[in-house]
Amino acid sequence: MEFRMAKGEVLLRVSAILFLVSTACIVAFDTETKVVILMIKKKATYKDLDALKILLYVTSAAAGYNMLQLCKHSFSACSTIRNFNDSYYMHMAWISFLLDQIVVYLTFATNTSAFEACLFALTGSEAFQWMKVCNKFTRFCYQIGGAILCCYIASILMAMISTISAYKVLRMYSPKRFLRLKGK
Amino acid sequence: MEFRMAKGEVLLRVSAILFLVSTACIVAFDTETKVVILMIKKKATYKDLDALKILLYVTSAAAGYNMLQLCKHSFSACSTIRNFNDSYYMHMAWISFLLDQIVVYLTFATNTSAFEACLFALTGSEAFQWMKVCNKFTRFCYQIGGAILCCYIASILMAMISTISAYKVLRMYSPKRFLRLKGK
Repeated sequence: MEFRMAKGEVLLRVSAILFLVSTACIVAFDTETKVVILMIKKKATYKDLDALKILLYVTSAAAGYNMLQLCKHSFSACSTIRNFNDSYYMHMAWISFLLDQIVVYLTFATNTSAFEACLFALTGSEAFQWMKVCNKFTRFCYQIGGAILCCYIASILMAMISTISAYKVLRMYSPKRFLRLKGK
Repeated sequence: MEFRMAKGEVLLRVSAILFLVSTACIVAFDTETKVVILMIKKKATYKDLDALKILLYVTSAAAGYNMLQLCKHSFSACSTIRNFNDSYYMHMAWISFLLDQIVVYLTFATNTSAFEACLFALTGSEAFQWMKVCNKFTRFCYQIGGAILCCYIASILMAMISTISAYKVLRMYSPKRFLRLKGK
Protein backbone atom coordinates (compact mmCIF):
# COMPACT_ATOMS: atom_id res chain seq x y z
CA MET A 1 0.00 0.00 0.00
CA GLU A 2 2.88 2.27 0.97
CA PHE A 3 4.40 1.23 -2.34
CA ARG A 4 1.26 2.23 -4.26
CA MET A 5 1.36 5.74 -2.81
CA ALA A 6 5.05 6.07 -3.67
CA LYS A 7 4.28 4.94 -7.22
CA GLY A 8 1.48 7.51 -7.48
CA GLU A 9 3.75 10.28 -6.27
CA VAL A 10 6.49 9.34 -8.73
CA LEU A 11 3.94 9.27 -11.55
CA LEU A 12 2.60 12.69 -10.56
CA ARG A 13 6.08 14.17 -10.30
CA VAL A 14 7.14 12.77 -13.68
CA SER A 15 4.06 14.18 -15.41
CA ALA A 16 4.51 17.54 -13.64
CA ILE A 17 8.12 17.63 -14.90
CA LEU A 18 6.95 16.87 -18.45
CA PHE A 19 4.40 19.68 -18.38
CA LEU A 20 6.86 22.13 -16.81
CA VAL A 21 9.57 21.34 -19.35
CA SER A 22 7.14 21.66 -22.25
CA THR A 23 5.99 25.04 -20.87
CA ALA A 24 9.59 26.22 -20.70
CA CYS A 25 10.37 24.94 -24.20
CA ILE A 26 7.27 26.48 -25.78
CA VAL A 27 8.03 29.84 -24.19
CA ALA A 28 11.73 29.77 -25.01
CA PHE A 29 11.41 28.76 -28.67
CA ASP A 30 8.39 30.88 -29.50
CA THR A 31 9.34 33.60 -32.00
CA GLU A 32 7.47 35.38 -34.76
CA THR A 33 8.74 37.99 -37.20
CA LYS A 34 6.36 40.41 -38.85
CA VAL A 35 6.79 43.38 -41.15
CA VAL A 36 5.55 46.43 -39.29
CA ILE A 37 5.96 49.33 -41.75
CA LEU A 38 7.43 48.82 -45.24
CA MET A 39 10.82 47.17 -44.69
CA ILE A 40 11.00 47.44 -40.91
CA LYS A 41 10.67 44.02 -39.36
CA LYS A 42 9.87 43.29 -35.76
CA LYS A 43 10.58 40.05 -33.97
CA ALA A 44 8.49 38.95 -31.00
CA THR A 45 10.20 36.75 -28.41
CA TYR A 46 9.62 35.98 -24.77
CA LYS A 47 12.21 38.65 -23.92
CA ASP A 48 9.72 41.39 -24.80
CA LEU A 49 7.70 40.62 -21.70
CA ASP A 50 9.21 40.35 -18.22
CA ALA A 51 6.38 38.09 -17.07
CA LEU A 52 7.33 35.50 -19.71
CA LYS A 53 11.01 35.69 -18.78
CA ILE A 54 10.16 35.02 -15.14
CA LEU A 55 7.78 32.22 -16.17
CA LEU A 56 10.61 30.56 -18.10
CA TYR A 57 12.99 30.72 -15.13
CA VAL A 58 10.42 29.58 -12.57
CA THR A 59 9.16 26.63 -14.60
CA SER A 60 12.74 25.49 -15.24
CA ALA A 61 13.54 25.77 -11.54
CA ALA A 62 10.36 23.91 -10.58
CA ALA A 63 11.19 21.11 -13.04
CA GLY A 64 14.68 20.89 -11.54
CA TYR A 65 13.27 20.79 -8.01
CA ASN A 66 10.91 17.94 -8.90
CA MET A 67 13.78 16.09 -10.54
CA LEU A 68 15.79 16.39 -7.29
CA GLN A 69 12.81 15.12 -5.30
CA LEU A 70 12.62 12.11 -7.64
CA CYS A 71 16.32 11.41 -7.05
CA LYS A 72 15.80 11.65 -3.28
CA HIS A 73 12.83 9.33 -3.63
CA SER A 74 14.78 6.61 -5.41
CA PHE A 75 17.70 6.87 -2.98
CA SER A 76 15.63 6.67 0.18
CA ALA A 77 13.03 4.19 -1.12
CA CYS A 78 14.14 1.47 1.28
CA SER A 79 15.33 3.48 4.25
CA THR A 80 12.14 5.47 4.93
CA ILE A 81 10.10 2.36 5.65
CA ARG A 82 12.65 1.04 8.09
CA ASN A 83 13.11 4.17 10.26
CA PHE A 84 9.46 5.06 10.38
CA ASN A 85 9.17 6.97 13.60
CA ASP A 86 12.56 8.49 13.18
CA SER A 87 12.94 12.22 13.80
CA TYR A 88 15.12 12.34 10.65
CA TYR A 89 12.18 11.04 8.62
CA MET A 90 9.89 13.66 10.18
CA HIS A 91 12.31 16.48 9.44
CA MET A 92 12.73 15.43 5.84
CA ALA A 93 8.96 15.05 5.42
CA TRP A 94 8.31 18.51 6.88
CA ILE A 95 10.97 20.10 4.68
CA SER A 96 9.70 18.49 1.51
CA PHE A 97 6.12 19.44 2.42
CA LEU A 98 7.10 23.09 2.88
CA LEU A 99 9.25 23.16 -0.27
CA ASP A 100 6.44 21.56 -2.28
CA GLN A 101 4.06 24.23 -1.05
CA ILE A 102 6.44 27.06 -1.89
CA VAL A 103 7.15 25.69 -5.38
CA VAL A 104 3.47 25.20 -6.22
CA TYR A 105 2.50 28.70 -5.03
CA LEU A 106 5.42 30.26 -6.90
CA THR A 107 4.63 28.44 -10.14
CA PHE A 108 0.96 29.26 -9.85
CA ALA A 109 1.67 32.94 -9.17
CA THR A 110 4.12 33.44 -12.04
CA ASN A 111 1.81 31.60 -14.40
CA THR A 112 -1.14 33.73 -13.39
CA SER A 113 0.85 36.92 -13.82
CA ALA A 114 1.93 35.76 -17.30
CA PHE A 115 -1.73 35.04 -18.03
CA GLU A 116 -2.70 38.55 -16.94
CA ALA A 117 0.05 40.09 -19.09
CA CYS A 118 -1.12 38.08 -22.11
CA LEU A 119 -4.70 39.14 -21.47
CA PHE A 120 -3.55 42.75 -21.73
CA ALA A 121 -1.72 41.93 -24.97
CA LEU A 122 -4.87 40.27 -26.29
CA THR A 123 -7.41 42.90 -25.37
CA GLY A 124 -5.44 46.08 -24.77
CA SER A 125 -6.90 48.61 -22.37
CA GLU A 126 -9.21 51.41 -23.43
CA ALA A 127 -8.93 53.32 -20.15
CA PHE A 128 -5.13 53.36 -20.36
CA GLN A 129 -4.98 53.81 -24.16
CA TRP A 130 -2.93 50.63 -24.57
CA MET A 131 -3.24 49.00 -27.97
CA LYS A 132 -3.67 45.32 -28.71
CA VAL A 133 -0.57 43.36 -29.66
CA CYS A 134 -1.94 39.92 -30.40
CA ASN A 135 -3.76 40.88 -33.60
CA LYS A 136 -0.31 41.39 -35.13
CA PHE A 137 1.55 38.42 -33.66
CA THR A 138 -1.24 35.84 -33.72
CA ARG A 139 0.74 32.60 -33.85
CA PHE A 140 3.06 33.81 -31.10
CA CYS A 141 0.10 34.51 -28.85
CA TYR A 142 -1.51 31.13 -29.50
CA GLN A 143 1.73 29.36 -28.56
CA ILE A 144 2.03 31.36 -25.33
CA GLY A 145 -1.58 30.45 -24.56
CA GLY A 146 -0.66 26.78 -24.93
CA ALA A 147 2.33 27.24 -22.63
CA ILE A 148 0.14 28.84 -19.96
CA LEU A 149 -2.37 25.98 -20.22
CA CYS A 150 0.47 23.44 -19.79
CA CYS A 151 1.72 25.34 -16.76
CA TYR A 152 -1.75 25.37 -15.15
CA ILE A 153 -1.95 21.59 -15.58
CA ALA A 154 1.50 21.30 -14.00
CA SER A 155 0.33 23.52 -11.11
CA ILE A 156 -2.69 21.29 -10.44
CA LEU A 157 -0.45 18.20 -10.51
CA MET A 158 1.96 19.85 -8.06
CA ALA A 159 -0.93 20.86 -5.78
CA MET A 160 -1.87 17.16 -5.67
CA ILE A 161 1.76 16.26 -4.91
CA SER A 162 1.82 18.75 -2.04
CA THR A 163 -1.34 17.14 -0.62
CA ILE A 164 0.47 13.78 -0.70
CA SER A 165 3.47 15.31 1.11
CA ALA A 166 1.07 16.77 3.68
CA TYR A 167 -0.48 13.32 4.12
CA LYS A 168 2.95 11.76 4.57
CA VAL A 169 3.91 14.14 7.37
CA LEU A 170 0.61 14.83 9.13
CA ARG A 171 -0.62 11.27 9.58
CA MET A 172 2.32 10.74 11.95
CA TYR A 173 0.60 12.91 14.56
CA SER A 174 -1.75 11.63 17.21
CA PRO A 175 -5.46 12.26 16.58
CA LYS A 176 -6.09 12.79 20.28
CA ARG A 177 -3.21 14.88 21.53
CA PHE A 178 -2.03 18.15 20.02
CA LEU A 179 1.13 17.93 17.87
CA ARG A 180 2.23 14.70 19.55
CA LEU A 181 3.72 11.90 17.45
CA LYS A 182 1.89 8.61 17.36
CA GLY A 183 4.56 6.26 18.64
CA LYS A 184 5.11 8.23 21.84
CA MET B 1 -4.58 21.28 23.59
CA GLU B 2 -7.34 20.73 21.06
CA PHE B 3 -8.78 23.94 22.38
CA ARG B 4 -5.52 25.80 21.80
CA MET B 5 -5.49 24.75 18.13
CA ALA B 6 -9.11 25.85 17.72
CA LYS B 7 -8.25 29.20 19.29
CA GLY B 8 -5.30 29.59 16.92
CA GLU B 9 -7.47 28.83 13.93
CA VAL B 10 -10.12 31.32 15.00
CA LEU B 11 -7.46 33.97 15.52
CA LEU B 12 -5.96 33.30 12.08
CA ARG B 13 -9.37 33.40 10.41
CA VAL B 14 -10.34 36.65 12.12
CA SER B 15 -7.11 38.35 11.07
CA ALA B 16 -7.46 36.99 7.52
CA ILE B 17 -10.98 38.46 7.39
CA LEU B 18 -9.69 41.81 8.61
CA PHE B 19 -6.98 41.93 5.94
CA LEU B 20 -9.38 40.79 3.21
CA VAL B 21 -12.00 43.36 4.16
CA SER B 22 -9.42 46.13 4.29
CA THR B 23 -8.15 45.11 0.83
CA ALA B 24 -11.70 45.26 -0.53
CA CYS B 25 -12.36 48.63 1.10
CA ILE B 26 -9.11 50.20 -0.09
CA VAL B 27 -9.75 49.04 -3.65
CA ALA B 28 -13.42 50.06 -3.65
CA PHE B 29 -12.97 53.56 -2.22
CA ASP B 30 -9.79 54.46 -4.08
CA THR B 31 -10.47 57.29 -6.54
CA GLU B 32 -8.37 60.12 -7.88
CA THR B 33 -9.38 62.91 -10.25
CA LYS B 34 -6.78 64.72 -12.34
CA VAL B 35 -6.94 67.36 -15.04
CA VAL B 36 -5.62 65.80 -18.22
CA ILE B 37 -5.73 68.60 -20.82
CA LEU B 38 -7.07 72.05 -19.97
CA MET B 39 -10.56 71.51 -18.57
CA ILE B 40 -10.92 67.82 -19.29
CA LYS B 41 -10.86 65.87 -16.05
CA LYS B 42 -10.28 62.16 -15.73
CA LYS B 43 -11.25 60.06 -12.76
CA ALA B 44 -9.37 56.87 -11.90
CA THR B 45 -11.32 54.14 -10.10
CA TYR B 46 -10.98 50.40 -9.73
CA LYS B 47 -13.45 50.00 -12.62
CA ASP B 48 -10.77 51.04 -15.11
CA LEU B 49 -8.95 47.78 -14.62
CA ASP B 50 -10.66 44.38 -14.82
CA ALA B 51 -8.02 42.83 -12.58
CA LEU B 52 -8.97 45.21 -9.74
CA LYS B 53 -12.68 44.50 -10.22
CA ILE B 54 -12.04 40.77 -9.95
CA LEU B 55 -9.77 41.35 -6.93
CA LEU B 56 -12.60 43.23 -5.19
CA TYR B 57 -15.11 40.43 -5.81
CA VAL B 58 -12.73 37.62 -4.87
CA THR B 59 -11.53 39.23 -1.63
CA SER B 60 -15.14 39.93 -0.60
CA ALA B 61 -16.10 36.34 -1.35
CA ALA B 62 -13.08 35.00 0.55
CA ALA B 63 -13.93 37.17 3.56
CA GLY B 64 -17.52 35.84 3.43
CA TYR B 65 -16.29 32.27 3.20
CA ASN B 66 -14.03 32.69 6.24
CA MET B 67 -16.93 34.26 8.13
CA LEU B 68 -19.09 31.21 7.37
CA GLN B 69 -16.28 28.92 8.55
CA LEU B 70 -16.12 30.89 11.81
CA CYS B 71 -19.89 30.43 12.27
CA LYS B 72 -19.55 26.69 11.59
CA HIS B 73 -16.70 26.62 14.09
CA SER B 74 -18.68 28.21 16.90
CA PHE B 75 -21.72 26.00 16.24
CA SER B 76 -19.81 22.72 16.20
CA ALA B 77 -17.28 23.60 18.91
CA CYS B 78 -18.62 20.98 21.30
CA SER B 79 -19.87 18.32 18.91
CA THR B 80 -16.63 17.68 17.02
CA ILE B 81 -14.74 16.54 20.09
CA ARG B 82 -17.45 14.09 21.03
CA ASN B 83 -17.88 12.31 17.67
CA PHE B 84 -14.22 12.06 16.91
CA ASN B 85 -14.00 9.05 14.65
CA ASP B 86 -17.30 9.84 13.05
CA SER B 87 -17.50 9.65 9.26
CA TYR B 88 -19.49 12.90 9.37
CA TYR B 89 -16.53 14.60 11.03
CA MET B 90 -14.19 13.23 8.37
CA HIS B 91 -16.44 14.39 5.53
CA MET B 92 -16.72 17.89 6.97
CA ALA B 93 -12.98 18.05 7.58
CA TRP B 94 -12.20 16.96 4.02
CA ILE B 95 -14.67 19.45 2.55
CA SER B 96 -13.34 22.35 4.57
CA PHE B 97 -9.74 21.36 3.71
CA LEU B 98 -10.56 21.37 -0.02
CA LEU B 99 -12.54 24.62 0.18
CA ASP B 100 -9.74 26.29 2.13
CA GLN B 101 -7.27 25.23 -0.55
CA ILE B 102 -9.47 26.51 -3.38
CA VAL B 103 -10.05 29.86 -1.66
CA VAL B 104 -6.38 30.44 -0.90
CA TYR B 105 -5.27 29.59 -4.46
CA LEU B 106 -8.01 31.78 -5.93
CA THR B 107 -7.15 34.75 -3.72
CA PHE B 108 -3.46 34.37 -4.38
CA ALA B 109 -3.99 34.14 -8.14
CA THR B 110 -6.27 37.18 -8.44
CA ASN B 111 -3.95 39.19 -6.22
CA THR B 112 -0.92 38.25 -8.31
CA SER B 113 -2.72 39.16 -11.52
CA ALA B 114 -3.69 42.53 -10.03
CA PHE B 115 -0.04 42.98 -9.04
CA GLU B 116 1.07 42.24 -12.61
CA ALA B 117 -1.49 44.69 -14.01
CA CYS B 118 -0.28 47.40 -11.62
CA LEU B 119 3.30 46.68 -12.57
CA PHE B 120 2.37 47.44 -16.16
CA ALA B 121 0.65 50.63 -15.07
CA LEU B 122 3.77 51.58 -13.11
CA THR B 123 6.44 50.83 -15.71
CA GLY B 124 4.59 50.70 -19.02
CA SER B 125 6.07 48.54 -21.75
CA GLU B 126 8.57 49.75 -24.29
CA ALA B 127 8.25 46.74 -26.57
CA PHE B 128 4.48 47.15 -26.78
CA GLN B 129 4.52 50.99 -26.78
CA TRP B 130 2.34 51.14 -23.69
CA MET B 131 2.71 54.32 -21.68
CA LYS B 132 2.97 54.63 -17.91
CA VAL B 133 -0.18 55.50 -16.01
CA CYS B 134 1.04 55.80 -12.44
CA ASN B 135 3.07 58.97 -12.95
CA LYS B 136 -0.27 60.73 -13.43
CA PHE B 137 -2.35 59.03 -10.74
CA THR B 138 0.30 58.64 -8.04
CA ARG B 139 -1.85 58.52 -4.91
CA PHE B 140 -4.24 56.05 -6.55
CA CYS B 141 -1.35 53.75 -7.35
CA TYR B 142 0.11 53.92 -3.84
CA GLN B 143 -3.26 52.96 -2.35
CA ILE B 144 -3.63 50.01 -4.72
CA GLY B 145 -0.12 48.92 -3.74
CA GLY B 146 -1.21 48.93 -0.10
CA ALA B 147 -4.28 46.87 -0.97
CA ILE B 148 -2.14 44.28 -2.76
CA LEU B 149 0.20 44.06 0.22
CA CYS B 150 -2.79 43.50 2.55
CA CYS B 151 -4.08 40.79 0.26
CA TYR B 152 -0.70 39.01 0.21
CA ILE B 153 -0.68 38.98 4.01
CA ALA B 154 -4.22 37.57 3.95
CA SER B 155 -3.08 34.91 1.47
CA ILE B 156 -0.23 33.82 3.75
CA LEU B 157 -2.63 33.66 6.72
CA MET B 158 -5.06 31.56 4.70
CA ALA B 159 -2.25 29.25 3.57
CA MET B 160 -1.52 28.68 7.27
CA ILE B 161 -5.22 28.01 7.90
CA SER B 162 -5.28 25.46 5.10
CA THR B 163 -2.29 23.70 6.69
CA ILE B 164 -4.27 23.50 9.94
CA SER B 165 -7.26 22.04 8.07
CA ALA B 166 -4.92 19.53 6.45
CA TYR B 167 -3.58 18.63 9.90
CA LYS B 168 -7.10 18.18 11.22
CA VAL B 169 -8.06 15.73 8.52
CA LEU B 170 -4.82 13.89 7.78
CA ARG B 171 -3.80 12.97 11.33
CA MET B 172 -6.87 10.73 11.43
CA TYR B 173 -5.15 8.28 9.07
CA SER B 174 -3.01 5.39 10.12
CA PRO B 175 0.76 5.89 9.75
CA LYS B 176 1.26 2.23 8.81
CA ARG B 177 -1.58 1.39 6.48
CA PHE B 178 -2.51 3.33 3.35
CA LEU B 179 -5.56 5.60 3.66
CA ARG B 180 -6.92 3.64 6.62
CA LEU B 181 -8.44 5.48 9.58
CA LYS B 182 -6.80 5.08 12.95
CA GLY B 183 -9.65 3.71 15.00
CA LYS B 184 -10.30 0.76 12.67
